[in-house]
Amino acid sequence: MASTLSQRILSERTLSMRRNQIREILKVVSQPGMISLAGGIPAPESFPIEDLYRINEAVLDRFGAAALQYDLTEGFRPFREALVGYLNAKDIVVSANEILIFNGSQSVLDTLGKVLITPGDAIALETPSYLGAISAFSAYEPTYVSIDTDDEGILPESLDATLASQQVKFIYLVTTFQNPTGRTLSEVRRRQVAEIVKRRGALVIEDDPYSDLRYRGKAVPSLYTYAPENTVYVSTLSKVFAPGLRLGFCLAPPLIHEWLYTAKQGADLHSNTYAQALATEYICGGYINRQLPKIIDLYRPRLEAMLDALARHLPADYGWTEPDGGMFIWVEAPAGVDAEDLYWRAVEQKVAFVPGKYFYIQPEDGLPTMRLNFTRADEATIEHAIAALSRIIRDCK
Amino acid sequence: MASTLSQRILSERTLSMRRNQIREILKVVSQPGMISLAGGIPAPESFPIEDLYRINEAVLDRFGAAALQYDLTEGFRPFREALVGYLNAKDIVVSANEILIFNGSQSVLDTLGKVLITPGDAIALETPSYLGAISAFSAYEPTYVSIDTDDEGILPESLDATLASQQVKFIYLVTTFQNPTGRTLSEVRRRQVAEIVKRRGALVIEDDPYSDLRYRGKAVPSLYTYAPENTVYVSTLSKVFAPGLRLGFCLAPPLIHEWLYTAKQGADLHSNTYAQALATEYICGGYINRQLPKIIDLYRPRLEAMLDALARHLPADYGWTEPDGGMFIWVEAPAGVDAEDLYWRAVEQKVAFVPGKYFYIQPEDGLPTMRLNFTRADEATIEHAIAALSRIIRDCK
Repeated sequence: MASTLSQRILSERTLSMRRNQIREILKVVSQPGMISLAGGIPAPESFPIEDLYRINEAVLDRFGAAALQYDLTEGFRPFREALVGYLNAKDIVVSANEILIFNGSQSVLDTLGKVLITPGDAIALETPSYLGAISAFSAYEPTYVSIDTDDEGILPESLDATLASQQVKFIYLVTTFQNPTGRTLSEVRRRQVAEIVKRRGALVIEDDPYSDLRYRGKAVPSLYTYAPENTVYVSTLSKVFAPGLRLGFCLAPPLIHEWLYTAKQGADLHSNTYAQALATEYICGGYINRQLPKIIDLYRPRLEAMLDALARHLPADYGWTEPDGGMFIWVEAPAGVDAEDLYWRAVEQKVAFVPGKYFYIQPEDGLPTMRLNFTRADEATIEHAIAALSRIIRDCK
Repeated sequence: MASTLSQRILSERTLSMRRNQIREILKVVSQPGMISLAGGIPAPESFPIEDLYRINEAVLDRFGAAALQYDLTEGFRPFREALVGYLNAKDIVVSANEILIFNGSQSVLDTLGKVLITPGDAIALETPSYLGAISAFSAYEPTYVSIDTDDEGILPESLDATLASQQVKFIYLVTTFQNPTGRTLSEVRRRQVAEIVKRRGALVIEDDPYSDLRYRGKAVPSLYTYAPENTVYVSTLSKVFAPGLRLGFCLAPPLIHEWLYTAKQGADLHSNTYAQALATEYICGGYINRQLPKIIDLYRPRLEAMLDALARHLPADYGWTEPDGGMFIWVEAPAGVDAEDLYWRAVEQKVAFVPGKYFYIQPEDGLPTMRLNFTRADEATIEHAIAALSRIIRDCK
């Protein structure tokens, strides 16, 4: 018999996985001289590197061996206690026992998929939706249904009609400064969505990685605050500390909390203790309160520079979102334009973005859309990139 | 309609999960004054805390923002390059591209389960087996078959007969200083197992967290070196650096490597960059070569103290393994003794261990067995604990 392994070694679920195509596209983007508006990556100058010399010392002084040892599946206790205060400042009132720590919010989404999705279950998504969530859930073989949206996020009547007509395991939403559109679900809509999910006994997964990155306008309470018994609240320190530390967390109704804990215990025992200790010190040492305004001051002019450049350069039949925060602007070209074609022409001119079709479930949707990131490049570079992109667009007309 | 979520929100797979019972038992163990021979936890004094002040500075100086940024799914390139040398010293010859980094070896096991197990697939285990692996795999709803063992590990003829009589997705083995028994698969057996899996086109998962912790005797080559095309080699820095950093890794045949990568991308994007940068410096800065002999010098007398105490105190009808390394000794009481009953009596006397039955698939197996850890407590404490345990045993006779 043959010694080599055949395809039948793989599980059936493996065949339903697909590579995260944004990350595949990012491989081209790493070419020298490329201006990337593609990733969802913080600017390296947003990281508190100088502070980390002191934070590291404080962690070793304060926690010693405990920062290096096996720890609780639910997360390092001092970190969960620090997050209580951090969440309180967002009007989310919880105790440390209600918080579960994961390896970035991506691993919350994966574990939710594991705990909640039986193959064939329907999941409701806003359109377009965060690609990483689709990658995480798809490994558990769900089907997807789309909820209609407009500039204020999902349409409550579309959600209600969907929940009335079929069994939906959960609704997945990025409620504030959404990836990929930059849209924020309005406060009125949040109340309506909360009322609907409570009335129907439905579950929402509220993914909230960006709400701290608000450059203008007034904060909106999280959907979780309106329907805590029907919401899993998911967030991360990736955008306000450092993504390389992989620090995500969630709040979940007790039944789901219990099984997320059990699933995580089997999947990785617990998250990185040392990274959690660094984050504890980052929050409790007051570093975050000094760093977050710096990050906002870094990104606000970049958002403004991109909005300004789009208004000056793009043809009149192009539209785009005008977010108050986050990392992305969503551009819609007129019907008939293929943004992937523009992408390859732009890459030749050393400008990269993400064609918007990757954020749709149906392969024929979103062809004329683009996601532009404004946090990685400085204002002059953004002006240069949008001018170059506009020349390509006009050349193709 | 009700606003509360019902049990039907959970997936079918969730119902097949069970809590890791060792970790549940450890909750009692944290009582003040308890001597724990229960966990598989390194001694805190084995951690290079003083070195970490310098290692942290070196990481920030050398890698800066790159140590805090999003990174490759397969792992931080300098860490994978450092592991090439580390593995070479074990006669495992690989390139950095063949290594995949995970959140501890536990998450390698979880991801292997995800990629390989379709519900109902059979997995072959040595008896008894590592409980954490069973927890990881069980979330993907396999069935289990047992391979017979003796003091040198699994019996090749039992493995061959099992593979001849049924489809087995993979065989899971801890080949060196096994958890829970401390047994090592002999070199002769490794050659025989390699021949069998190659001949039958079967897959072995070789879990190797302990082989660096050798206190006496001669190193044995990994099973991977005899059958690299049929073996997934899994290891970790938890026992030679710090478990709280959650640094596991694997080598896998190309087809499995590719899908582990894809599954990890969807599950958590990548592992902690900062922890990988610390480990890079720990290996490349020569710290590991100074620290590992210290760890071995710390644990060797503890192993000897426990073997000596068992020989002096336990009744003549008790047997135990005599490992050359690792963290555990396995004790077998005469048939009819219930080690869980001994456990509760021992806990009253402030001594804890793990009843061995938890390491068996069949609930009626292993009742008179116990796993004793010798790395956490010092020699005098070990002598005291074994003497106390022996008094309890003799009192129950």
